[in-house]
Parts: sequence; C-alpha cells; structure tokens
Amino acid sequence: VNAILLSIGTEIVAVPRRDTNSQHIMEALAAIGVEVSGIKLLADDAELIAAELRAAQLHADVIIATGGLGPTSDDLTRQALALATGRSLNRAAELVREIRGRFERLGRFMPAINDVQADLVDGAIPISNPNGTAPGQWLLWDRCVVFLLPGPPPEMRPMLEASVLPQLRERSGRRVQRTRVLKIAFAGESAIEAVAAPIYQRHPGVRTTILAGAGQVELHFAAWAESAAAADETLNGLARQVRAALPGRVYAEDGAALHEVVARLLAAQGLTLSLAESCTGGLISASLTEVPGASRFFRVGYVCYSNDAKTDLLGVRPELIERLGAVSAEVALAMAHGARARAKTDLALAVTGIAGPEGGSPEKPTGLVFVAIAYPGGDFVRRFVCLGNRARVRAQTETLALEIARCHLLGLPWP
Amino acid sequence: VNAILLSIGTEIVAVPRRDTNSQHIMEALAAIGVEVSGIKLLADDAELIAAELRAAQLHADVIIATGGLGPTSDDLTRQALALATGRSLNRAAELVREIRGRFERLGRFMPAINDVQADLVDGAIPISNPNGTAPGQWLLWDRCVVFLLPGPPPEMRPMLEASVLPQLRERSGRRVQRTRVLKIAFAGESAIEAVAAPIYQRHPGVRTTILAGAGQVELHFAAWAESAAAADETLNGLARQVRAALPGRVYAEDGAALHEVVARLLAAQGLTLSLAESCTGGLISASLTEVPGASRFFRVGYVCYSNDAKTDLLGVRPELIERLGAVSAEVALAMAHGARARAKTDLALAVTGIAGPEGGSPEKPTGLVFVAIAYPGGDFVRRFVCLGNRARVRAQTETLALEIARCHLLGLPWP
Repeated sequence: VNAILLSIGTEIVAVPRRDTNSQHIMEALAAIGVEVSGIKLLADDAELIAAELRAAQLHADVIIATGGLGPTSDDLTRQALALATGRSLNRAAELVREIRGRFERLGRFMPAINDVQADLVDGAIPISNPNGTAPGQWLLWDRCVVFLLPGPPPEMRPMLEASVLPQLRERSGRRVQRTRVLKIAFAGESAIEAVAAPIYQRHPGVRTTILAGAGQVELHFAAWAESAAAADETLNGLARQVRAALPGRVYAEDGAALHEVVARLLAAQGLTLSLAESCTGGLISASLTEVPGASRFFRVGYVCYSNDAKTDLLGVRPELIERLGAVSAEVALAMAHGARARAKTDLALAVTGIAGPEGGSPEKPTGLVFVAIAYPGGDFVRRFVCLGNRARVRAQTETLALEIARCHLLGLPWP
Repeated sequence: VNAILLSIGTEIVAVPRRDTNSQHIMEALAAIGVEVSGIKLLADDAELIAAELRAAQLHADVIIATGGLGPTSDDLTRQALALATGRSLNRAAELVREIRGRFERLGRFMPAINDVQADLVDGAIPISNPNGTAPGQWLLWDRCVVFLLPGPPPEMRPMLEASVLPQLRERSGRRVQRTRVLKIAFAGESAIEAVAAPIYQRHPGVRTTILAGAGQVELHFAAWAESAAAADETLNGLARQVRAALPGRVYAEDGAALHEVVARLLAAQGLTLSLAESCTGGLISASLTEVPGASRFFRVGYVCYSNDAKTDLLGVRPELIERLGAVSAEVALAMAHGARARAKTDLALAVTGIAGPEGGSPEKPTGLVFVAIAYPGGDFVRRFVCLGNRARVRAQTETLALEIARCHLLGLPWP
C-alpha cells in the first residue's frame, strides 16, 4: 500500500520547513506498513491542487491532503477535489448545524463565510474534528482513497489517529515497522554513543539514529518484521542491553518528556512540589503544569527574578546574596529551603543562573547555573556551566533540575 | 513566472526534514521574482517521477528537479524525464570523456556504471558540475524550461547559482520580492478576513495568506516589483490601510512576538510587572523572561496552582474563592491586586481558568478563563472561553493576557 501526501497552503510553499504534517503522517503510516512515495507542498491554487490530485490518484492507493479547509477565500482544497473528480460540491445541512452549534456553545457569533466548511464532495463522508470548526472528509475515488484533513496539527493529528489510521491499518497487510525511543537526560551525545554503539551495531536489522539537544540525548530505533510482536521483541532485547549499559539513565521509552516522567513519579508517590526559579523565569513550572492533573502535586511556583524577590518571597538573607552573589550554591540552597518551608511541600526545586547575553563575568560566566533540591531530611546542589544562547541555557537548566528531581524520586545517584 | 520543484530520492520521502534543497531554491527564486507554487518530494520511481513531471509541466513555467542523477540503479531522474517527454536518452560522448577525465585527474578508477551519468535527454543541454561527477541538464519542453541538478547541496548550489539563476533572471524581468507580516492578537481568522479582504483584494499584485493559531492571526503579504523600494512602497500602502481598518489591533510588522512587544513597551516606559498565574502555570512568566534584559521590568511571578497558594501568596480571601470559585472574575481581580501590592510593581497581570481535560462543569466549561490587570488607579477583567485541548487553552490565555497588557500600555480600548 502506497500513499502520496499533499500539504496545502501558500505559506507552506513559501517556508517548506513549516510543513510538519508530512513528517508526522509519514511516520504514522510507516508504523502500519503504508509507504509514502511522494509528498507535495502546494500553494492555495485550486487548478494546481486539482491537477496534482489527479496525478497522485494514478499512482497511489491512498492520498492524504492537509490544509486548505478553513473558511476563507484562499481555502480551496474542497473545491480542488471536486474539480479533480468531476463531482459536485454540496452543502451538508447537518454539518452547517454542527459548525453553528459549536459557535453557539462558545457564545460567539459565527461569520456567514464559515458555512463553506460544511461543503462535501459528492459521495464523501465527513470526518469530525473535535478541536476546530473545519470537518474533514474522505472519499473512494476509483481504487484510491482520499482523505482531506485540516492543516493545524492540533486538529489534524487526533483526526488522523481516530479516523484515518484505523481504516488504513485494515488495508495494509505488509511488514510492520515498530519504533522505540530511549531518552537520556543531562548527558552528552558522544558519551552515550560510546556506550550504546557497540550494542546497536550487533543489531544491523535495526535502524538507529541519535538525536541530541538541550542536554538530552535520544536513541531512536526502528525495526521491521512480519508482525508487531516480532518487531517489539527485537526492540525489547536491544533496549534491555542499553539500559543495562547505562543503569538508571534511560528515563523514558514510551515517548514521555522528562517533565511528564517527573510528574508521574510525584503523583504516584503522593508527594507535593514547589519551585523557586530565577534564570528559568517560570519555564519549569510551565512544563510541569502542562501535564493534566498537575494540581495533584504542584503547589506553588515562585519566579524570583530580582534579589528583593528572593528575600521577600523565599526568605533568602540579603547578606548571603551580597557576600556570595545571587548565582551561588548557597543562594540556590536557601531558595529551595525557603520555597519548601513557605509552600509547605514535600520537595522544592530551586534554580539560579546567568542566562545571558548580559550579566556574565570571568569568575561567573554566562551559562553558570546552580540547581538545588530540598527534601525531608536533606538537600543537594549542583553547579553546571551550560553552553549556547539564552534559550539553550534556560532549556538545559530545566533538564538538569528535572533530572535531579527524577534521581531523588527513584533513589538514583545524583547526576 | 511560476516554478515547481522536485526533490527526488527515497531517503527524502522517508525523512522530509532532510530536504534542504527546496528551501534553498525557493529562497533563491523568490529573490529574483520567480514564485514557487509547488514542491514535490518523490521516491526513486521512474513512472512516478515521469507522471509528476507531466503534471508539473501543465502548470509551471519552470521545473527544477534535484537528485537522482547518480550512477546507481536507483538514480532514475534522467530516465523519468525521457519517459515524460517521450524523447530518447542518448549517451553524449564528450560527457563520457569529461567524466572519465575527472576520475583520471583524481587518480581514481572509474567504475563502468558511471557512464550513465553522460546520458542526455534528446535536445537537452548539459550543465557542468565543478564539484562532482554528475552533470546536470536543461531542456525546453513546450513553454516550460526543465532543469535537472544533482542532489548533494555542495554540488547543486553552485550549479544553481552559475547556470540556472542567470537564465531565470532574464525570464522574470529581474523583479524583486518583498514580504511583510502583520500580526493581530486575540482575534478570529474569519473576523479579520472580513475586514482585511476588501483591502487586499484591491491589491491583486500582492499575494496574501492568512495564518491563524492560538488566538492570533497573521496576514502575510508578498509583493513583486522592479525594485525593493517599489515593492516596499506597495506593502507600506497596504499595511497602512489594514492598520486603519483595524485600529490599534496590529501589534507587529517586524516579526516580533507578542511577548517581545509587551517587553519592549514595559522597558521603554520604565514600568515594572508582576504576574499571578493559575492555569497557565508560569507560561507567561517564562515568555516574558525569554527576552534578554527582562530583569529591567520583570519582578515576580506567582504560580498559584492551589487555592491555598492564592490565599497565602496573594491574600485572596478564602470566602471569595468558596463563594464564587477560583475561576471567577472576582478572584482574578483579587489575584492581580494581591500580586501588585505584594511585589510592589506598577502593573500586575493575573489569570485563572480551567485548562482541562478535567475540572469543567456546565456553568464553568473547560476553556473558561478570566484575565485581570491591576494598574495605578484601576483594574480590568475579561472573561473568555478558549477552544481546544489543554495546551491550546493555555496558549490562548497567554495571548489574551499579553494583549490586555499591550492595550493598557498603549492606551487602547480593551480587547
């Protein structure tokens, strides 16, 4: 089974890097044995899109087009499919009601132009969109099945998952690809490669890719087999060997982000957390509260950007800041203890550092950070110098802080 | 003048991110006034490539295909062009000599299969490749000009520069493209379209695209003219009319993000800010402190996830929370006043809401948020229902809060 993807929108042709949908869909299809032979990025031009749909239909079993389903005059994918197939475009009364109902429930006025989102190509079946107003649609066109999905990834992805993949899984009976991603925080790419390469070189049938960024390393493994179970078995063996070579360091194999792993551990252990952030400015609080149900463990985040705030909010003594500087191990520890006492939480994490571009000095360079944790009966502080620009220093500091929390929660040695 | 790009190679379809050629060529063409209307990433399949060349030839004045010119059996672009045009493929004796000479000069043995790189489609003119063995070729195919270039960027780019762009510059009349992006926060796509469309429809020479996401709308304009100054003049006029039709709503034309605009205004006016965040969990603090020099205006961020934290940190009366709920206009205002008083800042922004997926009720649905601002001598609170999942609710809430701050700082009516 063979697919061609169309990513539609003049802005995508202007900046091809913006097309994240093709990559996502390609990976989802590979996992169910559907091979992508072509990807087309097309401007909002109905004639062009229609011609490209016709050319794709000659070669592909499956066409998935994303984008161009909005209400405005440059959203032309529906019209293009009608043009390509020579079928009419009909306004579906029940879809009009649904779209209007959505606006009404939100207490908003619906501009009349939104009605065009209810247009279906003759014979097409609507695909509901729980996260937006534009429904999708799918159509059998001779031996080819065509799916139209909206472009915004938060709308497209759940629709792909719920309505496209199950149907295609039926159609493809080919070899199955399974993937596994092992994530390691606060580690360098070459150090991990040195340990892991001898292992994955013994598995030549598995495709391995190493990705590194912001103090994290990801090992991506892809295996093909006759069945998902057989591919999983290969990956299980490989993952077991990597874990044994890097004890305690692999924090996720299921795609979870580090903040999700820490959130799960806190929730499972029934512990509460507060945060005191200086250079990260709320980044760590924002990550942890991104997780649904964060209120079970997250109490308070103090974003103490100024020295006064560190004193007023957390009780850090001004003499300490004056003597050792706000960026020091002692101030990081005082922030953690202050947050833990004032927020009355089991744990507190604190970070202080120089994110740059200003504020560095020979003794305290840009990128210098201290991360502290306070817990019942103890504390710990780690000094580190991050490389890179302001955004990278902040991201690496977040990774270090979350990894310190993970090690505490699992009783692992400090990173 | 209108172009379609083909990026050929099975590895490119497997990882679309790897296709850096399209982005590079698209930018080079835009600069000389050639518009790209489609980009195709295609697997090494001669029939597929031939069909896609034929479809492109119907719509484009220019086709540039990169990749598939190597010597191995999966390099099929030459054959595909012969197939598409119905012309023969002839081995050019002088190209064979050139390719062999290159190997000899490097003191290497040339495998016989390299001879196929000397195959030219009937009527095609070779394009020399100073950095590799695969020559390119170009061909007039009815009214369309087709260029075949090798895939490796270090070979492709100099050939594009030396042999493709000069020819296309002639054809396009050296027209220059300039672009402008107008950003509008806390607005719906269709509402902005309704106001802006009558304006940009009066400028048919300007290509307009509307992008929407997380409570923001972007109007992208691209104009072509004989000179950059002339294109800028067109864009200036168009932007002036849009600003006049949407008074005060366009927050940036220079690519700045909303948090950067708010940060600039605070720094310029010498005002300080504190934040009280519930459902956004530190997201707004993290954005504002992303801006270098944020310590000039940013004092304290309170991430008050629990009701107790709202009381302890900000002095919100527990009876108020009990009577009206933590997600209410009154609590949002009390949070803002509490933050402003305790952090001793000129302004304070506060947000409280239900980010979901849990916590909603018929009277207070998921997505309901209140955003408040407290300033010297006054306050303001806005109720809003956000669409979408937890991440989108949080992102839209951030946009609304920052837009309220921007309106206050510029003396604009509340959004």
